[in-house]
Parts: sequence; C-alpha cells; structure tokens
Amino acid sequence: MNTPLAHQEIIPETYLDTLLNQGKQTIKFGADPSAPDLHLGHCVVLFQLRKLQELGHQVQFIIGDFTAKIGDPTGKSQTRKPLSDADIEHNAKTYQDQVFKILDPAKTTVYYNSEWLSKLSSADMINLAARYNVARMLERDDFHKRYHAGQSISIHEFLYPLLQGYDSVILKNDLEIGGTDQKFNLLVGRHLQRDYNTGAEQAIMTMPILEGTDGIKKMSKSLNNHIGILDDPNNMFGKIMSIPDELLVRYLTLLTDKSPQDIATIKAEMANQQLNPRDVKIELGQRIVTQFHSAAASQAALEHFKTVFAKKDIPDDMPQHVVPGSPKLVDWVVAEGILNSKKEMVRLIGQGAVTIDGKKITDIHYVLTIQSPCVLKIGKRRFFRLCTP
Amino acid sequence: MNTPLAHQEIIPETYLDTLLNQGKQTIKFGADPSAPDLHLGHCVVLFQLRKLQELGHQVQFIIGDFTAKIGDPTGKSQTRKPLSDADIEHNAKTYQDQVFKILDPAKTTVYYNSEWLSKLSSADMINLAARYNVARMLERDDFHKRYHAGQSISIHEFLYPLLQGYDSVILKNDLEIGGTDQKFNLLVGRHLQRDYNTGAEQAIMTMPILEGTDGIKKMSKSLNNHIGILDDPNNMFGKIMSIPDELLVRYLTLLTDKSPQDIATIKAEMANQQLNPRDVKIELGQRIVTQFHSAAASQAALEHFKTVFAKKDIPDDMPQHVVPGSPKLVDWVVAEGILNSKKEMVRLIGQGAVTIDGKKITDIHYVLTIQSPCVLKIGKRRFFRLCTP
Repeated sequence: MNTPLAHQEIIPETYLDTLLNQGKQTIKFGADPSAPDLHLGHCVVLFQLRKLQELGHQVQFIIGDFTAKIGDPTGKSQTRKPLSDADIEHNAKTYQDQVFKILDPAKTTVYYNSEWLSKLSSADMINLAARYNVARMLERDDFHKRYHAGQSISIHEFLYPLLQGYDSVILKNDLEIGGTDQKFNLLVGRHLQRDYNTGAEQAIMTMPILEGTDGIKKMSKSLNNHIGILDDPNNMFGKIMSIPDELLVRYLTLLTDKSPQDIATIKAEMANQQLNPRDVKIELGQRIVTQFHSAAASQAALEHFKTVFAKKDIPDDMPQHVVPGSPKLVDWVVAEGILNSKKEMVRLIGQGAVTIDGKKITDIHYVLTIQSPCVLKIGKRRFFRLCTP
Repeated sequence: MNTPLAHQEIIPETYLDTLLNQGKQTIKFGADPSAPDLHLGHCVVLFQLRKLQELGHQVQFIIGDFTAKIGDPTGKSQTRKPLSDADIEHNAKTYQDQVFKILDPAKTTVYYNSEWLSKLSSADMINLAARYNVARMLERDDFHKRYHAGQSISIHEFLYPLLQGYDSVILKNDLEIGGTDQKFNLLVGRHLQRDYNTGAEQAIMTMPILEGTDGIKKMSKSLNNHIGILDDPNNMFGKIMSIPDELLVRYLTLLTDKSPQDIATIKAEMANQQLNPRDVKIELGQRIVTQFHSAAASQAALEHFKTVFAKKDIPDDMPQHVVPGSPKLVDWVVAEGILNSKKEMVRLIGQGAVTIDGKKITDIHYVLTIQSPCVLKIGKRRFFRLCTP
C-alpha cells in the first residue's frame, strides 16, 4: 500500500487520486446505533475518516435511528429484534459521544436518517423497492447462506439495504466508507443515487475487518475478544498487550497514523529480532490509551502493567479470561475448564497454591470481582490473565 | 360436486357448511382494475359471489386502486409497469359498472384499498414486511419459475401479496374468494389476519380458471379467446356457439345456476346422443346474452346466427379467426397462414371462388371490416368464422 489511506477496496480505483489531490469531498458514514459501545474494530473506519478529514474532506455521519428499527441483517444468521425508540435514542447519544473521540467535529455533519425515512409514504416505499431485484439481493453473502441453509429471512430485511442506500440519495455524498462486510450495502447506495437521477454516483471504500484479541475472529463484544474505547486505561492497555505478535503490523496499519514506510521498517526489525514485539505492543498500547484517555493515563497504565505483569516469574504470554459478574472462584475455574473439579481447587487453596496478583487466596468461598486486569496463578506453572468484559 | 357452490378448493373444508347453513358471512373479493374489460373468465368468481349473495351473505368488493400501482405479479413472467392514477380511476369506474351486471348492489359494499394502504407509513410498511418471509414468498409458483429461470423479480413485487393481504386485516372478512391462481395471495390474507391478531381468520375458496373459446388456454383478452361481457349480442352469442363441445359441461357448471343434477342429466344425454350439443350451446348462449343484455336481444342474436350460419351448406364447426382492425383480405389470408401466397388468393377471387356470408368478393383490394361474426368461404370446402376481437 503506497498511500496513507490503507484500505481493502475502492470503487472506482481512480477515486483515490481525487481524495488525495482534488477539492473537498463529502463522505458518508452510516452507523447503526444498535450496539452503543464502540470498540477498536469500529475504529478502523473512524480512524480512516479522521485521516480523510485531515486531508480536508467533510464527513456526513448518519445515525441510523430509523434503520435501527429494522436491524441491519448484514452478517447475521437470523432476523434481529427491532430496538425500542428509547433504546435507539440512548444508543445514538452514547454512540455520538464516542465517535467524537476520533472524528473532528468541525468537519463532521451529523444526521439522523429518521428525518427523511420516517416521512416516506407507502407509495414511496414501493417506488424504492421497485428499484432493486430479488435475485441480486439474494446474492448478498449472508442472505445467500441463510436462504440455502433454510434459515428464515423476513421480507423487511430486504428493505434495509434499500433504506440505507436511500440515505445516499438524500445526501448526494461523493464517497461512502464502511467495513468489507458493508460492500453490498455501499454498492446499493451507488446504484440508487444513479437510479434516482441525483447526479451523484458515490465511490465506495471498504476497510478490512479487525481481528479481536484472540487474533482469529472478528473483534466483537459478543465474542469477548474486544477492546472497548470506553475501557479504563489499565484494561485497555492490558488487552493490547495480550494480542498475538502476528497481529501487530495489522493493528499498526489500521489503528495508527504511522506511515507505510515506518510500519515496513518495524516489520523488518521484528523479523530479524532487532526489535522486541513486546516493545512495539507497549508503544501501540500507549498510543491507543493516549488517544482515548490521556498521556498521563497512558503512562500510569504502563506502570500498572509493569508492576502486575512484568515481574520476572510471570510469563509474557498467558491465556486471557474475561470474568463477567462475581462468580465464586472454585465454581469459575471448573466452569472455564481450567480444573476438572471444585474439590481439586479446594485442595489447592488449602495448600496455599492459588494466588491473585501474588496474594495468596485462603478462603475457599472467595468471590472473583475484577476491577482491572490481574493474574491468577494456580500451582507452580499455570498463569491466567483475568480481565473485565 | 354435491353442493350448488361448485369450487376448486375451500380451506377449511368445514366452512362450506357455515356458508350453506349458518348466519350472514362477509366475503372479500378483490379486483385489480388494471384490465377494465371483464370477460366470462372473470365471471366465474362473480357468478359464485352472486350465488353466495342469494344465500344471504354480504360481498366486500375491493377495488385495488392502490395495489394496481404495483400490478399483481401473479402468473406474470415479468415485472409489470405501474398504471397511472388516471388509468386506474377510469378502469375502476368501468370495472364497477360491469361487476354490477352480476352482483346484487344491495348486498355489496364497495371499498377502494387506497383508503387505508395509502395511509401506511414507512414504519408500517416495514412492520408489514416483517410478517412474511422470503423463502415462502419464493415458493409461490410464478416467483419460483421466474427466479429459477433467471428472470428479474423486483422487490416491490413481494409487497403485493402482503398489501392485498392487509386488506383482509382491515376488513376482518370471514371468507375470501378468487381464482385458483390467487390461492397463494388468499392464504397470505389468512396468515396476516392471524398475525395481526384481528380475531378473524378468513376461510378461502378458489374457483377453477375458465378456458377460452379455443378450449385450451385460460380465457384472456391478450390471447383473443375471450368472450367479453360488453360484447354486442351477436358477437357474444356467436362466440359461445364456437366453443368446443367438450367445454360445455364446464361452462354450464361455472357460468350458470343450473343444478349439479340438471348438468349431470345434460351430460348423460349428450353422451348417448339424445341431446345435440348444438342445442345445449344455443341454450347457454341465450342465457348468457340475456344476462348481459336482454331476452329480446338474445332472441335476435339467435335469429341472426341462424340466418348467417345455419344454412345447410355451412358446417357447424369451422375454425374461428379474430380480425383486428381493417386488413386487406389478400394480405390477411397469407398472414393467418390460410393460403401460402397473395397470388393464389388473387387467382381465387378472379375465379369467383371467395365469398363472405354468401356474397361473392370481386375486388382484389377488398378490405376486411368485421362488425359482427361472418363466414368466409374460400374455394369449395374451406370455411372460416371471422369475428371481432
């Protein structure tokens, strides 16, 4: 990638030149406020938008409060329940607060798509639905899979891509940007702008999907492999330190403004062991914590990390477990498959062989309540990093 | 069929008993005013409705002025063009005039579905679309065929069955009746009444599709095998006389109020040649012409028919040709495949071997203009019945 705008795909390709060298462009970014808590996976697109703002472009940020009532079926294996108006309002507010930790408010216009979508009449809806056909809709990867697996697709789910595409008809934006899984929807927007004779025909740019801390699956709150942008500094920093080394270049590319040249150098130096991936992770962690909190918080998180994790007898890479709520320790280790029986755990506690952050656990009724990342040690060699959801 | 209500299918079967023996029921009949001219094919359902009115039931006659904007995709192999408001208004008026030649106005309530459908908001439309799924919609015979043949189905066509079904939600009717090709739509109405918790759950009754005068294909104006209810008496009577004998029992069953017993007797007497099918056709023709015109017009049409067709030297069964517009006779016989060349026709005219209703044609530029059915004779043995579209 020779451009500061690393991306998965851009249609048409020539549009990249426009973005880099020509006048101010309008860039649509639609967000479905169904999940109010943003994580770094969402930030891939937001950081890209920020870079585009720095190049002088204007972001049209659409809160999909109307479309949230349908629920974007993208990538879903079943029909989603519609959100209530109160949920949507609350989520939209929270979402916006978080987005402006990254985007430049001076170069962002916020829209709620209920402004125009709620005003469409039944005849307008029919007119919109007439502009796309069933076979092409069923070609969309997730619909295709569900249809052929015999899983139900409600007809209103076919309206979602059309309604979000209609947003582009109203905005007449020059570009729309989203994750690769949004490619189909973005192309529907391009098609509808043309079909409604708006005079516009949006380019589309897709961004790669970021893997979570497990290094394998798409970052997602429901998979517990996410790094939330509202995480406290210690949690945020600790989670970044836990990502596999193989993900480092990808995180640097998608989550920082480091130049492609700098990233290439880091990659080469890690490969020939001039550079320790652990140090690269520390730098990445500090950047991210600084971005969402402050430089001071970032420094404090590093100190905390060193105190807790960086002692000589604790390994760098240990399995990470998310601990929701307040389970009893003996129940939890069995539920997580760490030990086979509660009896065994009770015995180990009795032997003084169980510690949390170096402190011996003596109460067999001990309740786990994780405030910030800590290390559970069982016996002589088994370490587990525990963190909050 | 042991009941005076001959039909294709009724769901649930027990409902027939309700219709015959219980109190007043409301019966929905939806008409799409896209084709303003009714023919006997449409009358199968209308005659049935008339019988039901005579049993004391009430017809809810819906003019689908809103749904006509979509165009019912039932049985169609491609997406239909929406009608203009002016077309729809004109058609709805004409349609109603014709329907009341059969239905009892005192037992009919007329509705226009734009009254409620045009008021649905975009959110209502989404809510409606959420109540049915794509796979079941694609099971509908015509959609299934088009989808698998790679023919385009626009997404708004999926909304048609839902919108006509929503009419049932509003009306809370007890029964809906339609042609067999409407079965899917009628069942959607039943589903939606239940899904919207209306307290109603309409029974459905389907009627067989009537074959046209060719005896093979569904009666349809576009196939030129139809008998229009606005046809003048001579044309109407002549067309009925031209139907194949095999169709007689079917026409008697679906288009008259003759009892099943009477029809069985007629069938048996024709089979053992006690009864000439020609006389049965004459009786049927007189009934139909009387229904749509008058007893006097019916009698006059019979006289006309006898004068023109019933001469000894003219066979009873001859091929019928519809002659639209005013073609030149020599061009027309070649276009219809009756003769191979115009030269041959010119030669036959020169020999005095071509007559129309017994009058010799001498002008080789003779122009065909059919006002009422007539017989073209070419050479010694070839007879053709010509009629207007």
